[in-house]
Amino acid sequence: MIYLDNAASTPVRDDVLQEMMPYFKENYGNPSSIHRFGRIATKAIETARKRIAELINAQPSEILLTSGGTESNNTALYGIMHQNKTKQLITSSVEHDAILEPCKRLEKEGCNVTYLPVDNYGTVDIDKLNSSISKETALVSVMYGNNEVGTIQPIKEIARICKENNVLFHSDAVQAAGKIPIDVKDLGIDMLSISSHKINGPKGIGALYIKNGVKIDPFILGGGQENGLRSGTENVTNIVGFGKACQLAKENLQQNITYMTGLRDHLIERTLGELSHVSFNGHKENRLPNNAHFTFLGVSGEDLIIKLDENGVAASTGSACSVKTQKASHVLLAMGFSHEQITGSLRLTVGLTNTMEEIDKTVEILKTVVAELRGVSPFKTKYGFAS
Amino acid sequence: MIYLDNAASTPVRDDVLQEMMPYFKENYGNPSSIHRFGRIATKAIETARKRIAELINAQPSEILLTSGGTESNNTALYGIMHQNKTKQLITSSVEHDAILEPCKRLEKEGCNVTYLPVDNYGTVDIDKLNSSISKETALVSVMYGNNEVGTIQPIKEIARICKENNVLFHSDAVQAAGKIPIDVKDLGIDMLSISSHKINGPKGIGALYIKNGVKIDPFILGGGQENGLRSGTENVTNIVGFGKACQLAKENLQQNITYMTGLRDHLIERTLGELSHVSFNGHKENRLPNNAHFTFLGVSGEDLIIKLDENGVAASTGSACSVKTQKASHVLLAMGFSHEQITGSLRLTVGLTNTMEEIDKTVEILKTVVAELRGVSPFKTKYGFAS
Repeated sequence: MIYLDNAASTPVRDDVLQEMMPYFKENYGNPSSIHRFGRIATKAIETARKRIAELINAQPSEILLTSGGTESNNTALYGIMHQNKTKQLITSSVEHDAILEPCKRLEKEGCNVTYLPVDNYGTVDIDKLNSSISKETALVSVMYGNNEVGTIQPIKEIARICKENNVLFHSDAVQAAGKIPIDVKDLGIDMLSISSHKINGPKGIGALYIKNGVKIDPFILGGGQENGLRSGTENVTNIVGFGKACQLAKENLQQNITYMTGLRDHLIERTLGELSHVSFNGHKENRLPNNAHFTFLGVSGEDLIIKLDENGVAASTGSACSVKTQKASHVLLAMGFSHEQITGSLRLTVGLTNTMEEIDKTVEILKTVVAELRGVSPFKTKYGFAS
Repeated sequence: MIYLDNAASTPVRDDVLQEMMPYFKENYGNPSSIHRFGRIATKAIETARKRIAELINAQPSEILLTSGGTESNNTALYGIMHQNKTKQLITSSVEHDAILEPCKRLEKEGCNVTYLPVDNYGTVDIDKLNSSISKETALVSVMYGNNEVGTIQPIKEIARICKENNVLFHSDAVQAAGKIPIDVKDLGIDMLSISSHKINGPKGIGALYIKNGVKIDPFILGGGQENGLRSGTENVTNIVGFGKACQLAKENLQQNITYMTGLRDHLIERTLGELSHVSFNGHKENRLPNNAHFTFLGVSGEDLIIKLDENGVAASTGSACSVKTQKASHVLLAMGFSHEQITGSLRLTVGLTNTMEEIDKTVEILKTVVAELRGVSPFKTKYGFAS
């Protein structure tokens, strides 16, 4: 099976799993306990926190550990907006549902949410940000790299505008952190959501970078772990694994980018060169190194991934996180795509375990299954597909 | 090292870890993906959900997976009370902070919270519940077994009173589930919080039982996982481990109770028989099988656990989850303990990996360190301790 859905999740690396293993059966203490078992667990968390911080050039004290990217996003939005209930929140129309759904709830609670439009490449409209931001704005939240089409947003420029207006800036970097260089200090970001299982760490663990001095309301309340900002016994093993995944991602960043970009570009080149009626979506340069996103006219993306699956390729139509709902992608809608273009879309996301041979094999399979589906397509005559 | 802090956390069992292993590097799919990797992950979750449900005689559809007991408690309280913002919530004064802290927030939001008092054994005042409950009550939340003193509450009676008054009943069973028989149908419970790492499963995973028909507001919003009630990519490995831990807990329940009660009772008997100025706290019969809780007069519990740690015994003064805050136990205060009694308290909680030899060794160590501390105690003359 060729796995090309690395934006949905990734395998845990050997080094990561090795680092986690002692914390299941030997060092199983609760970090809140003051005896030896507790101290070992606490120390392990602090090592991991340091590694997570270093990935994005933050201080360990700026890293809040959560159960994953979704909780990080919820924590950031509620954490600021519940202190500013009737103020404005500016976000984009191409965010992940883990931002959009909390925004809907905040709107019901009285918050004024502005959704920045995007162009055909999925890049947010900076002019609209400039004209929307004001003294009434409490927070801007714009994602780093898009989970569906891979477009990277002009984060530094957005951060600069926020700073000029004394507005806090949060970015959902779940797809970007660990895959491209991110320096929160250089960029001027106030809060940043990151996730472990997108970078070969375990699932169920993530972090929210919160710049020193930024005060948020806690989201989950209880025993007061994480300086009172996130209660609940720490998921020690997964934190340890997340830390190791961050360390490896940082150490191998340029090498990984080169490797993934090589696979991705080969996939794009061959697909566009050897199949007809195919378009490539998202920004050409400002793009996550692992993401390829296509539209195959006259084909249903759902049928395509089922056929690909039957032929040994694991792919996605878009966000894994909402694919079961079968609703049209809000990202592609915001990018101005027609219903037909949306229907025929396919996301292939490469990872560190993929090989060039797998990419070549995938293109061959893609040619076969696209031709097969087009042979029975209702658009067959329109585009002149062969039977 | 003798680990007697099993109420804080427990080692992951071999069988549990074995069951988890294939989901790190092989079956690493995102359950929301529709390809083979996603389907394997989904199937694994459904097997686990069934096992978790069976532990408490629930239906799989009644099990909401969370990141742990604290999130389960937050989800239950906010999930009901945010639909009933000005109504009454009745809880007890001996709950875990994962209940009490959300209650404080709900009070700020306009909710009327009643805290039921307890007697000297930590049992809630049922008369007070009867006189407090009314048409204005939306929810009663009373813990199953206390995390500090081990007292089991009269859950069936509380559930009956709630039912008679058409009020929903939630119980925090983080310390009880998997350790004593719990049948939510027989008991008439509407919501129940359970945790994995207290029963030899991995940390960072828990569940909230929600009786079919009970509607709650979701707490974490996003991609709509868990039927829209808990968004975020599922922590597949830990869910699988939690499921296995529940299955093992159910299969070996009577055997485990006999084993832990044997260790506990031997510990209590020897400690009370061989040390002076010691009292045993919590209910004698209605008690968790793993909990022993003592007060050693003239000794600081903090000093005692440090000394025990130095001598190879891992113990706790009370809730691991708040021990670092050094505040006096709200549970013991509610039970009417004096400051001196609270100061001298020690919690020893046995687990499946402990042996009778360890218990005997612990008593010997306890005799030595208590004598040592009393020899330099400011209460030395008051109680006539030897130097």
